[in-house]
Amino acid sequence: MERTAYEAAALGLAGVLVTPGPDLVWLCGYRPTATTERLTLLVLTATSQPRLLVPAIDRPTAEAAPGAGAVRVFDWWEGQDAYAAAAGLLRPHGRYAVADGTWALHLLCLQKSLPLATYQPLSVVLPMRRAVKDEHEVARLTAAAAAADAAYEEVLALRFGGRSERELAADLAGLLRGHGHSRVDFTVVGAGPHGADPHHRPGDRVIGDGDMVVLEFGGLRDGYGFDTARTVHVGAPTDEERRVHETVRAAQRAAFGAVRPGVSCQEVDRAARAVLEEAGHAGHGAARTGHGVGVTTHEPPYLAEGEEQPLEPGMCFSLDPGIHLPDRFGVRIEDVVTCTEDGGRRLNTAPHDLVIVH
Amino acid sequence: MERTAYEAAALGLAGVLVTPGPDLVWLCGYRPTATTERLTLLVLTATSQPRLLVPAIDRPTAEAAPGAGAVRVFDWWEGQDAYAAAAGLLRPHGRYAVADGTWALHLLCLQKSLPLATYQPLSVVLPMRRAVKDEHEVARLTAAAAAADAAYEEVLALRFGGRSERELAADLAGLLRGHGHSRVDFTVVGAGPHGADPHHRPGDRVIGDGDMVVLEFGGLRDGYGFDTARTVHVGAPTDEERRVHETVRAAQRAAFGAVRPGVSCQEVDRAARAVLEEAGHAGHGAARTGHGVGVTTHEPPYLAEGEEQPLEPGMCFSLDPGIHLPDRFGVRIEDVVTCTEDGGRRLNTAPHDLVIVH
Repeated sequence: MERTAYEAAALGLAGVLVTPGPDLVWLCGYRPTATTERLTLLVLTATSQPRLLVPAIDRPTAEAAPGAGAVRVFDWWEGQDAYAAAAGLLRPHGRYAVADGTWALHLLCLQKSLPLATYQPLSVVLPMRRAVKDEHEVARLTAAAAAADAAYEEVLALRFGGRSERELAADLAGLLRGHGHSRVDFTVVGAGPHGADPHHRPGDRVIGDGDMVVLEFGGLRDGYGFDTARTVHVGAPTDEERRVHETVRAAQRAAFGAVRPGVSCQEVDRAARAVLEEAGHAGHGAARTGHGVGVTTHEPPYLAEGEEQPLEPGMCFSLDPGIHLPDRFGVRIEDVVTCTEDGGRRLNTAPHDLVIVH
Repeated sequence: MERTAYEAAALGLAGVLVTPGPDLVWLCGYRPTATTERLTLLVLTATSQPRLLVPAIDRPTAEAAPGAGAVRVFDWWEGQDAYAAAAGLLRPHGRYAVADGTWALHLLCLQKSLPLATYQPLSVVLPMRRAVKDEHEVARLTAAAAAADAAYEEVLALRFGGRSERELAADLAGLLRGHGHSRVDFTVVGAGPHGADPHHRPGDRVIGDGDMVVLEFGGLRDGYGFDTARTVHVGAPTDEERRVHETVRAAQRAAFGAVRPGVSCQEVDRAARAVLEEAGHAGHGAARTGHGVGVTTHEPPYLAEGEEQPLEPGMCFSLDPGIHLPDRFGVRIEDVVTCTEDGGRRLNTAPHDLVIVH
């Protein structure tokens, strides 16, 4: 909280405003029972102790949060104007950074209560705030990735042919939970042509012999995210399928090889993209090669064209190149990696081979 | 979508802007795989077909949404300015209603792209938009409540004494899933003094003989919410405990009795509150007596002092009076009810008795 407050002050901001969501969890460990229309607001400034405004009903849970000891808790009562209470904690002409996921309802009411203050998205003014992980965070991301790898290995022993994507996705979710994942956000099982849709939702399609099957799974374990993809094949693949898989594998390797401090995010993306283009798959790639992973499965830095942010040691992100051949099949290989002084280190270590399943 | 667009136009609004969340699901059935920093925006106006702007990567899932047939889908590509694309669909000086849960990131970027347009929270300009349910919705809410009742009945057969709140909460969640609940948002088990904290999270406290135990559980089934509470007692209750339970039961009955078309939300709240005050528990009540339930477990109408909204047939909401005696115990009895032409109808029908568990 202190570091965030000082970083904001250094940019000339009056403070940082945070409502329930990953930023609040990351900053003070507080996760209200539900995110509702009732205002909960953490105010960080360089000149005072962190202040947390909560509905009176939530005071006991707020005070039990891990970081509550460092925070002064204020409350507002049903029927009271929560935004007037919030305005009382802010400077009328201040420029504030607002957590990205703050409800528009709260922002619009704050803008009305404090019309001369100005607001900017936190991710625009302090984009890399959560991006550099400390050792403790990297350890939790590593454990989450290792558990995802273990679940993937067990999936390979299951029967694929003759079962629906949905059944297999449920099995995968069960295995992830068995390995300690507390939240499974998505288990994509994309068989045959469905593998070409990067956001496919597993459905009733029965997996058949000859199908390429994309598996992508993400969620949280011990508060930290994982996001992994592998592609398997039911029965013997064709030469073309092998070739496409090899290309994605090479693109992933190229992206990984480009990771080191000072290299920009877009250079990592370009390294992967160059391999795809070389192999004649220029238009078949994913929109971007990866994204940060931390207390969420999807956060800065973004590894995409136009992102000039240089990598720093401690950043953790996915490398997720893919080839999507519409109406035919897709291939994805995704690992979470961390940038160290010496280059990339993979947190996922499950092999990249095209595994034949049955 | 059409009704919402016309209601907004009747209020002089240029349109309604909806990002992923319950409003988007309710309006067009679209639920993106993940809610991210990538803009997805439904634009409803009285003068054109509904338009849905999505990241290009999401086009296939958006086009597969139940309501997609009525929507014109636009997409934006990675690297393109999504807010410029959105501005192209809007009127530069328009006044727009924005879905409450829209990320501040998106709103601030829209405000920057279209600086002369104005924005208001959807729940402020059209607070009752989702509040009146049609028959089909009431049927789904009824099924969700019936399944919650069935899970509650099974919980009563479990052993309470000597087990932790957490274990019992996990059992309850399992039973709810067994009855078809697709999402269990909370299973509060508050034993003894924990029952006095309305937002208590089940912990390691072992439930003991003589404990009053508050059970509150909510989530979604078939896309519609449930929110139920009952209070049970381990072994024989004291006279005071019985009396407090009877008072809450009477308050719930009084609130229910006040439900009919034309009665204001605050009158229902007052009916419950009068019973608590009469019994000497003026300061021990909940902040409000209830809230709407629909595609979320928590939405307008709010049954609280200051809410002058009259009830209408088809509104569905919880009635949740409680008595919280700090450091001692609490009692809550919560049902979802619907307002009909003839008065209230309970969707939850599990008895309100103080059940003795072991």
